[in-house]
Amino acid sequence: MLDVNKLITGDRRTAAKMITVIENEAPEKQALMAQIYPHTGRAYVLGITGSPGAGKSSLVDEIIKKIRGEDLKAGIIAVDPTSPISGGALLGDRIRMQEHTLDRGVFIRSMGARGCLGGLARATKDAVKVLDAFGCDMVLVETVGVGQSELDIMHYADTTVVVLTPGSGDHIQIIKAGIMEIADLFVINKADLGGARRIANDVEAMLDMSPRSNGWRPPVLTTSTIEVSGLDELWAGIKAHRDYIRSSGVLEEATRERLKLEVVEAVEQELFNLILERTKSDRQMGSLLDEVVRRKVDPYTAARRILDMFMQN
Amino acid sequence: MLDVNKLITGDRRTAAKMITVIENEAPEKQALMAQIYPHTGRAYVLGITGSPGAGKSSLVDEIIKKIRGEDLKAGIIAVDPTSPISGGALLGDRIRMQEHTLDRGVFIRSMGARGCLGGLARATKDAVKVLDAFGCDMVLVETVGVGQSELDIMHYADTTVVVLTPGSGDHIQIIKAGIMEIADLFVINKADLGGARRIANDVEAMLDMSPRSNGWRPPVLTTSTIEVSGLDELWAGIKAHRDYIRSSGVLEEATRERLKLEVVEAVEQELFNLILERTKSDRQMGSLLDEVVRRKVDPYTAARRILDMFMQN
Repeated sequence: MLDVNKLITGDRRTAAKMITVIENEAPEKQALMAQIYPHTGRAYVLGITGSPGAGKSSLVDEIIKKIRGEDLKAGIIAVDPTSPISGGALLGDRIRMQEHTLDRGVFIRSMGARGCLGGLARATKDAVKVLDAFGCDMVLVETVGVGQSELDIMHYADTTVVVLTPGSGDHIQIIKAGIMEIADLFVINKADLGGARRIANDVEAMLDMSPRSNGWRPPVLTTSTIEVSGLDELWAGIKAHRDYIRSSGVLEEATRERLKLEVVEAVEQELFNLILERTKSDRQMGSLLDEVVRRKVDPYTAARRILDMFMQN
Repeated sequence: MLDVNKLITGDRRTAAKMITVIENEAPEKQALMAQIYPHTGRAYVLGITGSPGAGKSSLVDEIIKKIRGEDLKAGIIAVDPTSPISGGALLGDRIRMQEHTLDRGVFIRSMGARGCLGGLARATKDAVKVLDAFGCDMVLVETVGVGQSELDIMHYADTTVVVLTPGSGDHIQIIKAGIMEIADLFVINKADLGGARRIANDVEAMLDMSPRSNGWRPPVLTTSTIEVSGLDELWAGIKAHRDYIRSSGVLEEATRERLKLEVVEAVEQELFNLILERTKSDRQMGSLLDEVVRRKVDPYTAARRILDMFMQN
């Protein structure tokens, strides 16, 4: 069993091994998470998403510098749902982050898809808890793309930054895909390419049409890591959102809702395994399935019958 | 309530409305699916996936012609997980399929992401059942992209065709993303562009390294809808796979496994709603959640306690 005391005193190897346990859904995972949990709740989680090639990694690099500049500890989880690469592997653009790998105040980890996507969001969420207990003040979760998987993962971030680029033509796509609702800050990166202003205007127009219920209007910032512009404003914007959700009670409410969902999902997962197990061994279940196969009983009706069986014992 | 008798006698408006009920997760959905279910199990489900721009829609067009050439009825569900477009909307490349819209033997429907992705896979699966009961002999499910969502959707196909193109450089990516395991046929489309042979060789090499457990080696075909080449071979390949899984018992086994999973997922879904409902009203649940928020109890432990509560009543 891995030692949680070593984790909370900042042992990097222990942190890395614990994330591997999570990724592998190893049997000791639940006991481990139970031990880690009391030491969590301190880290601020910053999500960064956007299309491939939007320059997210370079921005993450810059944000790491800002975090380190305030002498805070940074954790980075780079999630690629399209890649089955196992944790710990360095993706191509992780290499750019290597300047930080000797810095003891920075912990970087890549995670790829294995098993189902629900699995990846769950693993990411638990990996964030490890880095939280490990002592990271801010955990950056970077995801590639703007699909549903990214939305699921971003659901666990306190502040979500959506990165767009001029000329990519993807901003409408991104807005369509439900990102509008989860973005707390919009960043038009690669402003050096020109055309950033037009995209910023488009996004502002979209924001005019869909005001937030929580009273926060996402700022639309332009950045360039080449010209080193807009980065201070980005960092200030992130902190402004953090301060807003902390003081308004939005963070507290969101944390509660998130944990509630987490519990419900854990119940669901546990039950799923339990039911799968029982359908293997239970004769009553077996004959019910036979009826479904013979189209005598539909799956939803069968589900209700199984539920009744479970509820009684 | 929509009339299932109208559906099975081939009323198109009823079919369209039923799919809308499924997409909206309308309250009558379960009762409707229960009525539809006895009339299903006849249609053959063909999945077609590949990156955007691989020419899937053109291939689907050609396959529709083959199906119609044998005087069979075709259903097409075009799924775009990145788009929240509601059912019935015609996407850009659906327009090319319009030559079939006056053909009473062809039913085309687009589906976009709404709610969670699990939701989209589930909606697609139920929409396939509607088209099955509607009398379609073959239902084509076309998905954009090769993410996890597409893999989930393809899980419900009897035969899955993966479409690659020369020069897109995406074939390695596709192979990485777990497609290798679900592909029953590989098609290198746009063979007119040149370079198709090389990609075919790469795929064959990958297949050499990972033989299937079920005894089927996916053929690697080259097609061009411009030069109208390889299309007869593609259709023959699809039918060969269908015949193989039918005669070998693979189809029967897969259908059983799929229905079993479907039942388990329905149980899970039902329970999820039930638990969410109870966490709203139940005081015991409420105080357990408070403990989770105060980091006294971790989510997994809370889940087990809730499970115990449920099992007892």
